[in-house]
Amino acid sequence: MTRAVNDFGSELKVLDELHRGDGAQPAVFETITVSKEAGVLFAEIASPPMNLLGPELVRDLVSVIQQAEADDSVRVLVFKSADPDYFIPHVDVTRIAEYRQFAAKLAGEPSLGLLFRYLSASHLITIAQIEGRVRGAGSEFVLACDMRFAARESAIFGQLEMAFGQTPGAGAIQHLTRLMGRSRALEVLSSAQDYDAELAERYGWINRALPAAALDGFVTSLAQRIAAFPAAGLSKLKERVNAIALAPVEEFRRDSALFVELGGQPETRIRMEAAMKRGFQTREAELDLNRMLGELVEQ
Amino acid sequence: MTRAVNDFGSELKVLDELHRGDGAQPAVFETITVSKEAGVLFAEIASPPMNLLGPELVRDLVSVIQQAEADDSVRVLVFKSADPDYFIPHVDVTRIAEYRQFAAKLAGEPSLGLLFRYLSASHLITIAQIEGRVRGAGSEFVLACDMRFAARESAIFGQLEMAFGQTPGAGAIQHLTRLMGRSRALEVLSSAQDYDAELAERYGWINRALPAAALDGFVTSLAQRIAAFPAAGLSKLKERVNAIALAPVEEFRRDSALFVELGGQPETRIRMEAAMKRGFQTREAELDLNRMLGELVEQ
Amino acid sequence: MTRAVNDFGSELKVLDELHRGDGAQPAVFETITVSKEAGVLFAEIASPPMNLLGPELVRDLVSVIQQAEADDSVRVLVFKSADPDYFIPHVDVTRIAEYRQFAAKLAGEPSLGLLFRYLSASHLITIAQIEGRVRGAGSEFVLACDMRFAARESAIFGQLEMAFGQTPGAGAIQHLTRLMGRSRALEVLSSAQDYDAELAERYGWINRALPAAALDGFVTSLAQRIAAFPAAGLSKLKERVNAIALAPVEEFRRDSALFVELGGQPETRIRMEAAMKRGFQTREAELDLNRMLGELVEQ
Repeated sequence: MTRAVNDFGSELKVLDELHRGDGAQPAVFETITVSKEAGVLFAEIASPPMNLLGPELVRDLVSVIQQAEADDSVRVLVFKSADPDYFIPHVDVTRIAEYRQFAAKLAGEPSLGLLFRYLSASHLITIAQIEGRVRGAGSEFVLACDMRFAARESAIFGQLEMAFGQTPGAGAIQHLTRLMGRSRALEVLSSAQDYDAELAERYGWINRALPAAALDGFVTSLAQRIAAFPAAGLSKLKERVNAIALAPVEEFRRDSALFVELGGQPETRIRMEAAMKRGFQTREAELDLNRMLGELVEQ
Repeated sequence: MTRAVNDFGSELKVLDELHRGDGAQPAVFETITVSKEAGVLFAEIASPPMNLLGPELVRDLVSVIQQAEADDSVRVLVFKSADPDYFIPHVDVTRIAEYRQFAAKLAGEPSLGLLFRYLSASHLITIAQIEGRVRGAGSEFVLACDMRFAARESAIFGQLEMAFGQTPGAGAIQHLTRLMGRSRALEVLSSAQDYDAELAERYGWINRALPAAALDGFVTSLAQRIAAFPAAGLSKLKERVNAIALAPVEEFRRDSALFVELGGQPETRIRMEAAMKRGFQTREAELDLNRMLGELVEQ
Repeated sequence: MTRAVNDFGSELKVLDELHRGDGAQPAVFETITVSKEAGVLFAEIASPPMNLLGPELVRDLVSVIQQAEADDSVRVLVFKSADPDYFIPHVDVTRIAEYRQFAAKLAGEPSLGLLFRYLSASHLITIAQIEGRVRGAGSEFVLACDMRFAARESAIFGQLEMAFGQTPGAGAIQHLTRLMGRSRALEVLSSAQDYDAELAERYGWINRALPAAALDGFVTSLAQRIAAFPAAGLSKLKERVNAIALAPVEEFRRDSALFVELGGQPETRIRMEAAMKRGFQTREAELDLNRMLGELVEQ
């Protein structure tokens, strides 16, 4: 497990390296380590202690996406995590206003949902290689990627928002309803329960669950195969598929606004405080977040 | 297997009990026994000899839905069957005009399809816990519920209408095409064949197939978890998911009209008579209805 | 393995036989052998050496569809292959202009995609019984059928176009995105990889994978069951399901045009030449086409 914690000043140096297209050399942002190889940019999220989606990580995701889009030699962007237990557990609920400002840099509006939709509409092919927990906006980030492959032993999926009386604000409603149909989406979204990789595959949440030992090899090989194909075809393909299956910006905007609106309910604040008292946003307590969410006291 | 057969006069008493919100006390309609526990209303269908969907059951379903919607303490409505072999086998074909009148009470129009769509649009989260046979409008009723969990050993699914030259009139075309895609929906709808729970799960007809012994515990636990979450969030969630995946009223109305129209064909009457001679609408003969439907004489 | 290679003059005789409704008698086109039994027309593709989709096969497919549609006694049309290794591998890339002219006979425009959409919109119920390889337009042909059942041991699926920098032009984008969702469709369409029958089933590419030994019996029995049901109901069913799940003609037309447009890229020509040198369009080399497509030299 490599962890790259670095000062922000190193970003400019990194971007230079990316532009040189020097594949061998790893580059580091504060919360993401990137490396490029044969048309594939690998972005490894490493934001200890648990990869919470806060301002720094949103800022670095924006930078990585911008750089990859600007680099003609990059066709495929792979996201993975340096932490085997947490890919992205969810947003940092104490810093919502801050990370939304960073999202606006690419999305034009302070909304994670619109940032993630920007990623889905990108000409790049994006792949999430998932080990550990993706809940809430973590799940929504990987749903915004074009494909998702997950480690059978360790990946855990959940939309936790309803335990706080909220609906997901960054795309889960749009993606999950289309991927798994009305009934499974209502189950997943209303129950705030954890789903393992095998069930997530059966429900269509991910493309496939694979043995952890085979995951990295599988994704790398797939990414390199795709990256060897002509860029114009890949870009046109995404346009055509998105025209059918990617929800309009306006729907993402409404889900984003509803998330904020419901966040203002007294019940949400009461439940959030109860969760914080039980260790929400700590590495240890979130290992069994599923149980905690089912036990938050009724208002 | 509890069966509650009761005179209709008891209904008013039951409604009173529901309004008192007294969870411990079971309540009975003529064809449905209801009990409430911690925000969940359990409605057990018990209409011997085989839970045919006739006027009494439609009337009681309407009452249960109305009461549950009017009771602020109810967030989740679970439907199950007191008969392990039949959940709802299909409509009572000898009493179509009658049950349609009862459907109009909630739907505004004499159409089962519109009644079922009303249920899908309700702010309540609805779960079907399925043992035994759901065919025809029985399948359409559970498809109108938000989620479906079925006993692996006993649940059987079928849209039998095409064996009589009809298309399903109460939502199966709308739901199955969206849940399982064009090809599997055409298979299911054109073949009038039986599907077991395992295959129904693979096709997306149900959320999941579970061992019969685990089914009740699983559904109760899921329902109670959801019922502990704030009502406003659940209601908004359904609105947003339905906006994507619930077909418009007009499409249900057209399917309903087409069902009636095709029911007037001479072939349909000939096939229905042939089926009645072979025991259609009797408990014993419908245990292997799949075979009977494949053998009705060509007109 | 029966192979019927015949001169074109025999077609008129065949059509006469079809109209006589004489089930026992097999009929032969140059590239397709047809037989009729109890409302089902079985069309076996036999165009050695490998069932490439060229002008003769497109011409004969058009004839078979026209005849089946004109014959009131036919309700179900089953396509299978006389070659256990190849169902339809893809189009004959050396004769594109020619086969497109034959497609225009039914589609009104020189486009395979519009011919295939015509088949999907037909009042006939169509079933593909798949052994061997279906790649490119071969996959698109079976996707245009209402249902697809495949031999677990031998069926192989792939959309190979992206290896040449093209997007599929005959319906794969429209069908696969709707059947398997955005993420799996992007995987399949961008990777140009082979998928076996089991994975194709999990992804919704086919209805079901079956043991090869059981496939013929299963499909024949299903086809005969459906063919015993009244024609008016089957026809109305297709109308209603297609209204939900069959993409508009205009989308097929755009994909068709994009395929031609991207085919004009220098990269496409370079890659096609590289493939031809390695045995593309030969029986032996295409047994492991998956590997070849991953190794075509970058332009």
